[in-house]
Amino acid sequence: MLEALKEKVWRANLELQKKGLVLYTWGNASEILREEGLVVIKPSGVPYEELRPESMVVVDLDGKIVEGSLRPSVDTKIHLDLYKFFPEIGGVVHTHSTYACAWAQACRDIPCLGGTHADYFFGPIPCTRPLSEEEVERSFEGDTGKVIAERFVGIKPLEVPGVLVAYHGPFTWGKDADEAVFHSVVLEEIARMSWLTLAVNPRVIPLSPKMLEKRYFRKHGKDAHYGQGSLH
Amino acid sequence: MLEALKEKVWRANLELQKKGLVLYTWGNASEILREEGLVVIKPSGVPYEELRPESMVVVDLDGKIVEGSLRPSVDTKIHLDLYKFFPEIGGVVHTHSTYACAWAQACRDIPCLGGTHADYFFGPIPCTRPLSEEEVERSFEGDTGKVIAERFVGIKPLEVPGVLVAYHGPFTWGKDADEAVFHSVVLEEIARMSWLTLAVNPRVIPLSPKMLEKRYFRKHGKDAHYGQGSLH
Amino acid sequence: MLEALKEKVWRANLELQKKGLVLYTWGNASEILREEGLVVIKPSGVPYEELRPESMVVVDLDGKIVEGSLRPSVDTKIHLDLYKFFPEIGGVVHTHSTYACAWAQACRDIPCLGGTHADYFFGPIPCTRPLSEEEVERSFEGDTGKVIAERFVGIKPLEVPGVLVAYHGPFTWGKDADEAVFHSVVLEEIARMSWLTLAVNPRVIPLSPKMLEKRYFRKHGKDAHYGQGSLH
Amino acid sequence: MLEALKEKVWRANLELQKKGLVLYTWGNASEILREEGLVVIKPSGVPYEELRPESMVVVDLDGKIVEGSLRPSVDTKIHLDLYKFFPEIGGVVHTHSTYACAWAQACRDIPCLGGTHADYFFGPIPCTRPLSEEEVERSFEGDTGKVIAERFVGIKPLEVPGVLVAYHGPFTWGKDADEAVFHSVVLEEIARMSWLTLAVNPRVIPLSPKMLEKRYFRKHGKDAHYGQGSLH
Repeated sequence: MLEALKEKVWRANLELQKKGLVLYTWGNASEILREEGLVVIKPSGVPYEELRPESMVVVDLDGKIVEGSLRPSVDTKIHLDLYKFFPEIGGVVHTHSTYACAWAQACRDIPCLGGTHADYFFGPIPCTRPLSEEEVERSFEGDTGKVIAERFVGIKPLEVPGVLVAYHGPFTWGKDADEAVFHSVVLEEIARMSWLTLAVNPRVIPLSPKMLEKRYFRKHGKDAHYGQGSLH
Repeated sequence: MLEALKEKVWRANLELQKKGLVLYTWGNASEILREEGLVVIKPSGVPYEELRPESMVVVDLDGKIVEGSLRPSVDTKIHLDLYKFFPEIGGVVHTHSTYACAWAQACRDIPCLGGTHADYFFGPIPCTRPLSEEEVERSFEGDTGKVIAERFVGIKPLEVPGVLVAYHGPFTWGKDADEAVFHSVVLEEIARMSWLTLAVNPRVIPLSPKMLEKRYFRKHGKDAHYGQGSLH
Repeated sequence: MLEALKEKVWRANLELQKKGLVLYTWGNASEILREEGLVVIKPSGVPYEELRPESMVVVDLDGKIVEGSLRPSVDTKIHLDLYKFFPEIGGVVHTHSTYACAWAQACRDIPCLGGTHADYFFGPIPCTRPLSEEEVERSFEGDTGKVIAERFVGIKPLEVPGVLVAYHGPFTWGKDADEAVFHSVVLEEIARMSWLTLAVNPRVIPLSPKMLEKRYFRKHGKDAHYGQGSLH
Repeated sequence: MLEALKEKVWRANLELQKKGLVLYTWGNASEILREEGLVVIKPSGVPYEELRPESMVVVDLDGKIVEGSLRPSVDTKIHLDLYKFFPEIGGVVHTHSTYACAWAQACRDIPCLGGTHADYFFGPIPCTRPLSEEEVERSFEGDTGKVIAERFVGIKPLEVPGVLVAYHGPFTWGKDADEAVFHSVVLEEIARMSWLTLAVNPRVIPLSPKMLEKRYFRKHGKDAHYGQGSLH
């Protein structure tokens, strides 16, 4: 079972590069086996060309390496925290994709400005508060999961499947690693489109709540009527 | 006859992807057989790699599936309305191409700022009004065609072969599916060029009506003298 | 001799597409045989994939077709006028490349903001005045060459090998078609870099005349010390 | 030994083109043999396709050609000065990459706006002052190294492995040519991301000194815990 998952997580990581979201080694995808409490994640700083399914690292929810000879991603603690805070998710992705990072560095939520956004994110894409000096001192990896969770009070993680970490970059998630990758790609495109929209009309009014609701639930939930019953 | 048209519409859909206008499944092209009252359109949410000519769906003007085992695009109602409102058109395309969506999300017409625009669109590219709360409540797919038609009172659809739907994205059309695809590509490039023009000179004055007329009719109508008699 | 030149001009036209400067058929390159008074130019509106060396059209300086079965580019009159106004040039290129068109549509000269520009253009890249209503009425193709020449009073065409035609787009030139293509590519990159520079610092001061002179003549003229004696 | 280094420097130059940082011949990479006082550098103005390992030029620290039949890069003097001013570096790269040039032309330091920057540059990326008229008159190549060194008083070159030369473009360096190339690619991405960040929020506050320190030393120095012990 772990072999199949390593292969799947490996492919998900390669897909990030194929979609143009990562430069060098700046991205990582993981997936969790909920029952076993095991997470398969990319190793730290290994060039994508050298990655193999067997390079993937298996850790438990405390971050202890269960299988694999390489060190896991430096962002592993954040992945694990997300799995703990959001029990309904099964895959996590982090990248430094350019437009999403620009919004994260600008410390701004991405407002919902149109249908492309509303089709996949049910509301603005939140940006976390910056870490305090004390949090940074303690370990910014350690508290990043916490500040993400703070922003999701009252938001269902699978309805807003991504976040911008201030001064850092985007994290996305989904039912599994593939869906988390998909949301990464969509988030980058939304970040770009919204950036361009604001530039051409800085006073634009976000989508109305009614329209947001209509668009989002056209693709999601029990009354969805998009696609052939498949994922997207 | 339908087999040939399915193949043509299939190729038109693939061309949208090849030209970089669609991410995942975010686009659709159709063509109408006027005499039979039948429309061939892409199925909803099927990855481009999996599309085959026989995946295309045939519907009548009421949206009833006449042939095909897949559900048609969720935008089918809008395609059908465009065919009804604009009897002179034969093909329709919808995409979420980035710059055109930025203008649509900004709820702004694209002013005619130069020859590239004037060669293909005889005047500004209109943006519709946003749907009212009641219209959205009823069904935003249902009323999109209507708000497009509202904007084309006094405009010949084949002289301005595209529109921006507020908060949504572009629709284009033409004599057939291929021409609608061509206008999609041109619209995206005009949207990008105009965006860049306004950024470098926000007080730019649009092209004079005389120049617009001269440029447009150099490529269109009985006195055209561009090309070898072929389409573009 | 004409066969060799047709092949060269054909390759120059293909290079425009390869460098990403043309969408569909929106570009054309030509070269002149000064002694014979003959110009070889791309035909109008033929897709690049279908172009062959023998598709090139040979015209005299009055625009009369001397050889070739296709209609020459609609911009032929402008090419011919440039050859007449600027006796030192041997090749001309026109494109609708995105950033150069944005400046042309904004009706602004591109100021010389750095070394990349100064290496190839000895001063700002001029934008013509818009054509008057009377000129447009008469024929905007007819008077475009004239308004370009107006802007080059006191400027050596080979030291500033390109121009922006207001509301239209760039024309470049050089000793031959290859050099005109090279200047097209360089102009587009300069247009992009200058656009980005102004956005990040709208009050930037152009390069000093002394620096402009030093940089330009490092690559040009009798004291040049760049390269191996070859063209660029 | 020189043969191996020529091959390495040749590959480093090709990598610049592969990563999309150079148009035509606008870039150069070199590496130094400290003990021998020899520098291997790209020749001036030779198209990348024609470069071979044996095209590389070997010069001593006075710029005298020790081996090679071609003229070295016009920027050789600047490379040599950097090797003299910064004894800890082993490789140097210069490009005209678009976003880095835009900042250089805008005469602005790139502020540290997020983690992507802080991971590789320990503080803002400095822009030099413009050369004075006298310096330009004397030779701008001659004094460029000097104005770079002026900006690095109090900055460790390997902690801030790059600079913007006002009105010109970026220079980067590292332990060897490969690391200098890596820093060129990273600098261009940071330049782009920062440009986009400022556009969406012109009043953004740079990363706190504490966060900068934490992020930078996560990847560098004796307490680094990123990667598998390899370079990046």
